[in-house]
Amino acid sequence: MTDFTRPEPGLVEELGRYSAATIHEAQGRRGALTSSIKPVDHRMSLCGPAFTVRCAPRDNLMLQVAISRARPGDVIVVSAGEYAEAGSFGDVLANACLAKGIAGLVTDTGVRDTAELRKLGLPVFSHSVSIKGTVKETVSPPAEPVLIGGELVRPGDVVRGDADGVVVVRQEELADVIEASRAREVAEAGYIAAYRAGKSVIEVSGLAPVLAAKGLAVD
Amino acid sequence: MTDFTRPEPGLVEELGRYSAATIHEAQGRRGALTSSIKPVDHRMSLCGPAFTVRCAPRDNLMLQVAISRARPGDVIVVSAGEYAEAGSFGDVLANACLAKGIAGLVTDTGVRDTAELRKLGLPVFSHSVSIKGTVKETVSPPAEPVLIGGELVRPGDVVRGDADGVVVVRQEELADVIEASRAREVAEAGYIAAYRAGKSVIEVSGLAPVLAAKGLAVD
Amino acid sequence: MTDFTRPEPGLVEELGRYSAATIHEAQGRRGALTSSIKPVDHRMSLCGPAFTVRCAPRDNLMLQVAISRARPGDVIVVSAGEYAEAGSFGDVLANACLAKGIAGLVTDTGVRDTAELRKLGLPVFSHSVSIKGTVKETVSPPAEPVLIGGELVRPGDVVRGDADGVVVVRQEELADVIEASRAREVAEAGYIAAYRAGKSVIEVSGLAPVLAAKGLAVD
Amino acid sequence: MTDFTRPEPGLVEELGRYSAATIHEAQGRRGALTSSIKPVDHRMSLCGPAFTVRCAPRDNLMLQVAISRARPGDVIVVSAGEYAEAGSFGDVLANACLAKGIAGLVTDTGVRDTAELRKLGLPVFSHSVSIKGTVKETVSPPAEPVLIGGELVRPGDVVRGDADGVVVVRQEELADVIEASRAREVAEAGYIAAYRAGKSVIEVSGLAPVLAAKGLAVD
Amino acid sequence: MTDFTRPEPGLVEELGRYSAATIHEAQGRRGALTSSIKPVDHRMSLCGPAFTVRCAPRDNLMLQVAISRARPGDVIVVSAGEYAEAGSFGDVLANACLAKGIAGLVTDTGVRDTAELRKLGLPVFSHSVSIKGTVKETVSPPAEPVLIGGELVRPGDVVRGDADGVVVVRQEELADVIEASRAREVAEAGYIAAYRAGKSVIEVSGLAPVLAAKGLAVD
Amino acid sequence: MTDFTRPEPGLVEELGRYSAATIHEAQGRRGALTSSIKPVDHRMSLCGPAFTVRCAPRDNLMLQVAISRARPGDVIVVSAGEYAEAGSFGDVLANACLAKGIAGLVTDTGVRDTAELRKLGLPVFSHSVSIKGTVKETVSPPAEPVLIGGELVRPGDVVRGDADGVVVVRQEELADVIEASRAREVAEAGYIAAYRAGKSVIEVSGLAPVLAAKGLAVD
Repeated sequence: MTDFTRPEPGLVEELGRYSAATIHEAQGRRGALTSSIKPVDHRMSLCGPAFTVRCAPRDNLMLQVAISRARPGDVIVVSAGEYAEAGSFGDVLANACLAKGIAGLVTDTGVRDTAELRKLGLPVFSHSVSIKGTVKETVSPPAEPVLIGGELVRPGDVVRGDADGVVVVRQEELADVIEASRAREVAEAGYIAAYRAGKSVIEVSGLAPVLAAKGLAVD
Repeated sequence: MTDFTRPEPGLVEELGRYSAATIHEAQGRRGALTSSIKPVDHRMSLCGPAFTVRCAPRDNLMLQVAISRARPGDVIVVSAGEYAEAGSFGDVLANACLAKGIAGLVTDTGVRDTAELRKLGLPVFSHSVSIKGTVKETVSPPAEPVLIGGELVRPGDVVRGDADGVVVVRQEELADVIEASRAREVAEAGYIAAYRAGKSVIEVSGLAPVLAAKGLAVD
Repeated sequence: MTDFTRPEPGLVEELGRYSAATIHEAQGRRGALTSSIKPVDHRMSLCGPAFTVRCAPRDNLMLQVAISRARPGDVIVVSAGEYAEAGSFGDVLANACLAKGIAGLVTDTGVRDTAELRKLGLPVFSHSVSIKGTVKETVSPPAEPVLIGGELVRPGDVVRGDADGVVVVRQEELADVIEASRAREVAEAGYIAAYRAGKSVIEVSGLAPVLAAKGLAVD
Repeated sequence: MTDFTRPEPGLVEELGRYSAATIHEAQGRRGALTSSIKPVDHRMSLCGPAFTVRCAPRDNLMLQVAISRARPGDVIVVSAGEYAEAGSFGDVLANACLAKGIAGLVTDTGVRDTAELRKLGLPVFSHSVSIKGTVKETVSPPAEPVLIGGELVRPGDVVRGDADGVVVVRQEELADVIEASRAREVAEAGYIAAYRAGKSVIEVSGLAPVLAAKGLAVD
Repeated sequence: MTDFTRPEPGLVEELGRYSAATIHEAQGRRGALTSSIKPVDHRMSLCGPAFTVRCAPRDNLMLQVAISRARPGDVIVVSAGEYAEAGSFGDVLANACLAKGIAGLVTDTGVRDTAELRKLGLPVFSHSVSIKGTVKETVSPPAEPVLIGGELVRPGDVVRGDADGVVVVRQEELADVIEASRAREVAEAGYIAAYRAGKSVIEVSGLAPVLAAKGLAVD
Repeated sequence: MTDFTRPEPGLVEELGRYSAATIHEAQGRRGALTSSIKPVDHRMSLCGPAFTVRCAPRDNLMLQVAISRARPGDVIVVSAGEYAEAGSFGDVLANACLAKGIAGLVTDTGVRDTAELRKLGLPVFSHSVSIKGTVKETVSPPAEPVLIGGELVRPGDVVRGDADGVVVVRQEELADVIEASRAREVAEAGYIAAYRAGKSVIEVSGLAPVLAAKGLAVD
């Protein structure tokens, strides 16, 4: 159950060159997790196939199972009921992740030991930072699709996180999304060049006819 | 409609020397926007006349109109229904703002590309950071008074933002508020000197009679 | 009423060597304040006996009394109804605290002048950052037990805050909690060494029998 | 200051025949207070000129002043900082209102004695229901414009509340809004008749061209 | 796209005999939407195949399309970004639903005209009640899977709502879930009979060994 | 541990004649739980000694232990981390409570089967209504002091709930609080009589000197 198919590492690396926002737009405004899931530090960034797991609120048993079964490069994705008042992950488990080459953690509950997490350099994205300890009681099947941050994440889908938050890309759409992200970056560079050359936002975006049709006089 | 009167630039610059909290106190504890509107980075700071605009939630059409019509030194102020799950502004529009000399953005919805915003140095104050894209559909008259963060902001009123948040100053009260802010800073320097000289907080603040009247024994 | 017993300073200093999360675990997962109470800057850290006080929301009269009566090394702990929209403490009162050798502030309402607080180096933990001024109206007895962040804090109990938040330790349990914290740190260092030596999380934590009993096949 | 102009009672009564939602739409989708302000019981309904007042959170001094100065038919409108944890009004003050012929209360803080309020039949709209008592400390000028629920309410503007919440109508627009509300009701009756006659929603609303223009095939 | 397969009406009717909570338990604690989605009145109850649609926040264009395309017995399920401040549905559209035999509405945004909705008898489940009007701007494909209340709902899945909230049942599991719900009701009747006969909760639930294993002395 | 001292039943009954708000005021504005804890139906009312217990979020094991150990007349008070998304109690356990003569339930998590709870007539006060099932995993010592709704409740303290919410009275203060509640009711009846006789609120409350001292002209 835990040897689901991962995408080709070269593709994962390539996706990681684009920002979460660019990828979200490039795949048709899909896949962004809710804005409450943020990096512990705004310099943290990750990209990797999801090893998904569900935990009960204030219980990190399955998170520990996930770490023990994940492969190098995986991102642990933990759905735990958006419970803010639990520190389900800290420096000890972060060391376990680093020892295994795990690429990072995304969770909708809390984490702790954030000073150490910053030093260790493991990218961690969470709903909250909480001191409160967790129990190890509730079992559920690992590596199944989970709902987190209002999105469905399946094992092997790629999660990309940066200062803005986290987006998920379907494994089977990975190559297309990379291509669309690249195209979007090229287009955006063109917009920026046009602004610097003195063009107006409305001109560059082609919104003048939209505004005119809605009765707003154009510049 | 978009050439409303702006205050004299020298006054705007002078107001910018005082903190948002000092200005709020100096004008009689008025004008502070709700605490959920914060800078993307705590080092960001802005001061300028408001170019106001209203957007539908998850729609940035009128924000684009505002950028295209604002003048150098203006701060774009966007009221968009306090919707957290939208990234209505990012690095591309930030470049458009910088190209035009716009002084910054204040909004009650979300922004994105925050890593780039930090690098570009455009001060941006928002209710949230969200990856999610916006539509360009809904028109409303630009440069009219808007309600944002529980305060009324009129075109040409001055908005001042720093690490603590944002305060608005009525254009017609600008000179008085600068004067009162200066006076407050002088008074506060006196309090701090008194504390360093060993005086008690209650002594310095003159609260002893208040406490005595309410039945609390004074030091 | 304000010369309650403080713990021995050497013990307070020793407790301050352990993180808030470690202390919380070491004392049996007790004492952590709600996750909404956080440092103004993640580098802030404090440890000291609590000088407790209750304020009405948007009223800092008793906070001023606390500063005037606290002793060097005390941490001011202010329970003020979890009201976000008030800046009850700023750079002027921070200077008063520093002049008296007060070790820091913990409050469930807002503070302001955060740029100055960062420079001054006084550790401040709050529920929010708000510009809005406070009145000085409501009296209550100082240095009595208060409820804050879902925990009871009594005068002389020790509060320890770091990047993760704040934990309270009963004065009479201080020596035991230090001992248990030390033991926990030793144990955690052992876990980390085991991970680095290639051991699995499940193996190290001894969770294999738990998982097996719950029907989840072990690695 | 408290004898501001009230609208003609006949007009107020007429406005009260239309629902809050109808009025909001009829005046161009303006004036609706935030959805958190709701009647204590869904059968409560009010309409009257606003007697506005600002209170500090957990302080009802100015609410008492408002009751003592309001005129028969007035609705007391209290802006108190959206503080949920205060019961600023209960059965005793409700009796005072009834004795004076006051038409009801709208507030963005809490009320209490709701079982009695239901029996007394005074319509009360609030942000919360809370047991907690208030102080009587903070003074502010009565009968000035206040911000409540994200809207500006001026003395003499008309507030209309029903099961859905509260809307404010500018005094000078009252006659026009009544006329527009009447027209809207007639139009809506026509839509309903059309549905009952088997017409499609898209047909009746004339949205087919909109959909076609946006590329969605029409029925 | 809108003539997806619906389940057999007899099965839908049978499912409707069980409460949302019983169904949720019977299918293995799955399918419950977030607790913020509640009936307008606690006496409202619905059960039917989902006609799903996505709306932009404060936009009800696709809701109107859904009404025009749904079949008798369908429940309209609208995912609209959990935006509280919009009244996307009211008495006029409720009449359109009744005219077509639509079984009810479930949405994660707001509705209005709740007094009329109570009278009309159309069951409506929403995230909020709001007066505020919506635009009709944004198109998306109807009758595709949507995320609402933290759950995935596909066209033709059955939604069951009552005073406690809403649960979704996969179309292909309908018969099994009915069977399991019936079994659960029988078991619960047995528990209740045992309590009335004087048996202890711990005895009836068989939790004594669990408690003993965890070190809590049993009665 | 579960045969803590209960107060004399006659006193409990007498306290139950006063509203929660009256009791809160009579004991010096203490003891009110946070306003988010409300009755399932506004007609529910309870008064009884607390049988306290702590549960993990989404875990009702200790709630079941409490029911099995409580005595007739007790109110089960469950502190469970303010977790909204759990239905920890429903009609089956309500029948167990009724069979044992338990007086009601107060909890800071969710309950379900609210239609049945209304019919059964067991007063239930909760933070939320949620369908979602709970596990039975986590043990903690029953009948110890718990923190709930921002207040400390000890076994044998009396909890009183009505439409406005819940207040706790210390067991040792019970007789005094009853006396003070009676006095308050007499005083309030006097105020109401005065209002009906045409006296002003300010006159009756004696606030005229307060207002004059603060510079507000008196009627």
